Amino acid sequence: MFSGIVESVRGKGPLVHNITNYVTVNDCANILLACGGSPIMADDISEVEEITSICNALVINIGTLNERTVASMIRAGQKANALSRPVILDPVGAGASTLRTETVFKLLEAVDFAVIRGNISEIKTVYAGSGTTQGVDANAADAVDGSNLDSTISFAKELSSRTGAVIAITGAIDIVASADKAYVIRNGHPTMSRITGTGCMLTAVIGAFCGIGEPVLEATAAAVAAMGLSGEQAARKTEALGGGTGSFRRELIDAMSRMNGTILKEGILIEGR
Amino acid sequence: MFSGIVESVRGKGPLVHNITNYVTVNDCANILLACGGSPIMADDISEVEEITSICNALVINIGTLNERTVASMIRAGQKANALSRPVILDPVGAGASTLRTETVFKLLEAVDFAVIRGNISEIKTVYAGSGTTQGVDANAADAVDGSNLDSTISFAKELSSRTGAVIAITGAIDIVASADKAYVIRNGHPTMSRITGTGCMLTAVIGAFCGIGEPVLEATAAAVAAMGLSGEQAARKTEALGGGTGSFRRELIDAMSRMNGTILKEGILIEGR
Amino acid sequence: MFSGIVESVRGKGPLVHNITNYVTVNDCANILLACGGSPIMADDISEVEEITSICNALVINIGTLNERTVASMIRAGQKANALSRPVILDPVGAGASTLRTETVFKLLEAVDFAVIRGNISEIKTVYAGSGTTQGVDANAADAVDGSNLDSTISFAKELSSRTGAVIAITGAIDIVASADKAYVIRNGHPTMSRITGTGCMLTAVIGAFCGIGEPVLEATAAAVAAMGLSGEQAARKTEALGGGTGSFRRELIDAMSRMNGTILKEGILIEGR
Repeated sequence: MFSGIVESVRGKGPLVHNITNYVTVNDCANILLACGGSPIMADDISEVEEITSICNALVINIGTLNERTVASMIRAGQKANALSRPVILDPVGAGASTLRTETVFKLLEAVDFAVIRGNISEIKTVYAGSGTTQGVDANAADAVDGSNLDSTISFAKELSSRTGAVIAITGAIDIVASADKAYVIRNGHPTMSRITGTGCMLTAVIGAFCGIGEPVLEATAAAVAAMGLSGEQAARKTEALGGGTGSFRRELIDAMSRMNGTILKEGILIEGR
Repeated sequence: MFSGIVESVRGKGPLVHNITNYVTVNDCANILLACGGSPIMADDISEVEEITSICNALVINIGTLNERTVASMIRAGQKANALSRPVILDPVGAGASTLRTETVFKLLEAVDFAVIRGNISEIKTVYAGSGTTQGVDANAADAVDGSNLDSTISFAKELSSRTGAVIAITGAIDIVASADKAYVIRNGHPTMSRITGTGCMLTAVIGAFCGIGEPVLEATAAAVAAMGLSGEQAARKTEALGGGTGSFRRELIDAMSRMNGTILKEGILIEGR
Repeated sequence: MFSGIVESVRGKGPLVHNITNYVTVNDCANILLACGGSPIMADDISEVEEITSICNALVINIGTLNERTVASMIRAGQKANALSRPVILDPVGAGASTLRTETVFKLLEAVDFAVIRGNISEIKTVYAGSGTTQGVDANAADAVDGSNLDSTISFAKELSSRTGAVIAITGAIDIVASADKAYVIRNGHPTMSRITGTGCMLTAVIGAFCGIGEPVLEATAAAVAAMGLSGEQAARKTEALGGGTGSFRRELIDAMSRMNGTILKEGILIEGR
């Protein structure tokens, strides 16, 4: 199933509208092209609805948000909702400033997200704004490892139930959860955190994978696995060449540009929970 | 002649003012340096006239336009016109939203462009705003191939006649046309469309090539050929290395940084029409 | 000492808040990660104080400044001053437009900088705004070479005395000066000027090196040497591979990602003056 989704993205070439940050935007555009999608970046409020209308998915990334772009995010998100196009949220740095946290809460209020992807600390902030005054679940771990995997899966499922969105928590171990089903994915490589933008790129790729009409939970899991596996291949290649993080970044996009159903099937480390 | 222009850009080091998008701006800066020019990016309305004044050419790219930057584009374009510096337009996504289309029309009204470069669909939108209410010429093809080359050349010449700008339509086959003369260029490689920014980069390079005082038609044709040839060399190198699109991007800038008159003369595929 | 600083950055992982330009921001983020720091980019006025508060240093780069971001720079700079966090200024293009020059003067008035890094022409503009009406010191050279090294060192020391900031003038020869001591650094390679962003990247790295509590003069000198040495290694590698400027950029980040105390000690070319 996951292999089929990877192939289908290449076959269908989904258009993805990105309202994103200026730090990693070029990497997001290139990884979208590498996985078989097509990127469109547009953030002016007077055009975001039209651009969303011609796209198969919308990705909202708050990495370098400002007042002007937040208004555009909401406008575009509501248009995508009206057209039943999947909207993906990357709450970059949620919790690091009041602006980011409140923007996430405002977005959760105004827009129905198909997927929310972040690291554990960003997702805990999302949880705090998801309809309770209790704040962050005490059971949610600060880093996901073997010892707290079960409680983090429960946390992700509960957050999915509250928001209606598939929740993707990425880190050393990745969790992708709906209200009643979760996938645990063990692909990836530590060097991915030594370059900027691997999280943003993954969220963009999730946009492409969710833009082809497959079930959102499985499409998101396939994207997470494809990105993690690309990271593993990039690390192997970089090591063989004696390269550093500049080489790793190129190899990561190279690996995604070669990703296909066969490669994913052979390399995917996933279990349903 | 084309070889001489390539050499002359390296000799003179033209400064190019870019008001451009944040997706591909880094690639534009690096390709400008690679071809022998120097980039300056500045978009605040209170400085764009001064920056244009110290430059040899101005490149306007509407890729991530917004209200603030559109005003700066017009201000800078009019200053460049007053100083007789060439202004190059890249109407990214013209036709995809009302904002983009109307911005292009507004720019065509306010600024005299030396060159307009886009893909066939963007250039058709430019045509629609170039002084007639007829809309797009029915003879203009949706993709330029052998069968419709003649009609597309006629279309480009007519648009050049209407706008006073050299028209560069890029795709599998590239056309560079003034009102009475056209060049057909068959350099390039399909992988160029698998990374973001090759169009934006070419427009930036055209800015450098038009900034050294050579005839605009030939300077533009030389830039298009140099970029296409760089793409061919990058594809060969990438294939030899077993690389993907991340590698291709690096090889493209590498190839442009090595481009010279001899390489262009040996590789250029151009015919006058 | 310099070697110890390089190692300490990797050990402590300083967080660096960057209010910077959109041309080279991705390279700045990646070089920060490569040298052992962590980047945060945020420029909205309503969050810059909070972001600065959680960081170890603030880097202000005026490369693509606009009215909105200049206000944020001042707000963040004053917060960093209040918290005694080092603030680094990169006056990109100071002197090229009234906006840039006046912004630099305004920043010098409003914020106490720990380090100001630029090329000789930018630093001369800074000098003009540093508290005298005399304008640029006639003894300051237009390019630093053997013949005017002494006068340029005196100029840098005087500017440091006026501003209270360590002054880093980078070019073929680099000078890092406080009011009474200077280091002359002869690392680096001419190809560094053939890609965009080496100056911006160095300023970001200085941010990381000044964020770990070491003396600012030595931390800045270590950063300048580490960057120059990375450039030398990148040039050797690029030449060995037959690569161009695209390859050089990757090798530069690779080299920084491998930089350590031993490599710096063996390669550093520095003398106290």
